[in-house]
Amino acid sequence: MALEFYWMSGSPFAWRVMLALEFKGLKYESRRLDPSAGEHKTPAFLAMNPRGKVPVLQDGEITVYESLAILAYLERKQPEPALFGSNAQEAAAIWQRICELDNYTATAIMGVVRPILFDSGSPQLSEIEESAADTHRELKSLDDHLAGSSYLTGERLTAADIVFLPMLQYLIRASAKQQISSDSFGFLPLERRYGNIAAWLKRIEPMPGYDNAYPPHWRN
Amino acid sequence: MALEFYWMSGSPFAWRVMLALEFKGLKYESRRLDPSAGEHKTPAFLAMNPRGKVPVLQDGEITVYESLAILAYLERKQPEPALFGSNAQEAAAIWQRICELDNYTATAIMGVVRPILFDSGSPQLSEIEESAADTHRELKSLDDHLAGSSYLTGERLTAADIVFLPMLQYLIRASAKQQISSDSFGFLPLERRYGNIAAWLKRIEPMPGYDNAYPPHWRN
Repeated sequence: MALEFYWMSGSPFAWRVMLALEFKGLKYESRRLDPSAGEHKTPAFLAMNPRGKVPVLQDGEITVYESLAILAYLERKQPEPALFGSNAQEAAAIWQRICELDNYTATAIMGVVRPILFDSGSPQLSEIEESAADTHRELKSLDDHLAGSSYLTGERLTAADIVFLPMLQYLIRASAKQQISSDSFGFLPLERRYGNIAAWLKRIEPMPGYDNAYPPHWRN
Repeated sequence: MALEFYWMSGSPFAWRVMLALEFKGLKYESRRLDPSAGEHKTPAFLAMNPRGKVPVLQDGEITVYESLAILAYLERKQPEPALFGSNAQEAAAIWQRICELDNYTATAIMGVVRPILFDSGSPQLSEIEESAADTHRELKSLDDHLAGSSYLTGERLTAADIVFLPMLQYLIRASAKQQISSDSFGFLPLERRYGNIAAWLKRIEPMPGYDNAYPPHWRN
């Protein structure tokens, strides 16, 4: 039975899982939910994930939600190509980077992205300023790191890269919108501000499924 | 060379790692840091973890920080006894529970614990109420789940139990303090409010290292 993958366009958590499915070359049936129609709150969906959130992966009798749990599941189900390294040291570095991305980088970036893309009304500079400074600090550290390696934890693409990609895309999207106004927070152009991250992004783009996983409603 | 484990008394993140080290029967040298002396901000410590946080594990040339990364490292380094199950389905359930604990349960519990234990001044009921309601919802779900199994993800203790234990102990500690005042949020006595969680706690207590990992400064 094919995997069934439940997602919504633009969910950064579903995005990472779709990239992982594609990276591992796993066949799956795409179940895109329409949140405006409440498709993530139906009894059938809540039976799979009581929290009513995507991503959810169904593999026969097995249901998994929470994006990192799904990544860990896919790695155990089909170890190659590996997303979590080939030994304890590599696995540690990858998980460490993922934890840092989720615990610090995402918080900083969402503090910039949320007021610009999701909150109603015009974003207040003051509410974004601190998060923007935190984001610059996080990007600087990642950029420095990428000066010495092709991917976030070495010379091969791993789960850490997959976790970072949607965050960065959200920041780019929000920053591009923000540039319309007179105040830019200085994240763009990425090539000039964070050249190593920009080069990393160019390196990621040809990966399998990159285009599939890009949020369809962002293209409109 | 022995593992070196850097921790602080009461850090829930270090606590989980110490439980994991003990559960796996790994020998380690304990490096307890005194935060009031700034021992987590020394150049030597920042060279290991630039964020200046515990836990940090040093294993010869390998340094790992972020608690979940250390748990993943220990599992790869010494697979038995297993903390992340014995197959993909078990690993998924354990990671899923850990993600839920960190993304939802911890947020709710810390919203109760922080104002009572860490913020200066008397906690305002109003700031705790919403987190208390969220915490009750999370505990109810865990309690229901534990009606059907001995541990959080089945009949064996796993990393999920180890991640939950410090959170629960913090809630118990804060609730006991709060009971001194006239307003209790209804978490205690645990035996009566959440009988299955109380029974789970009794089941965990005899685990190796339980006493070692209990915050020393809480005993005073």
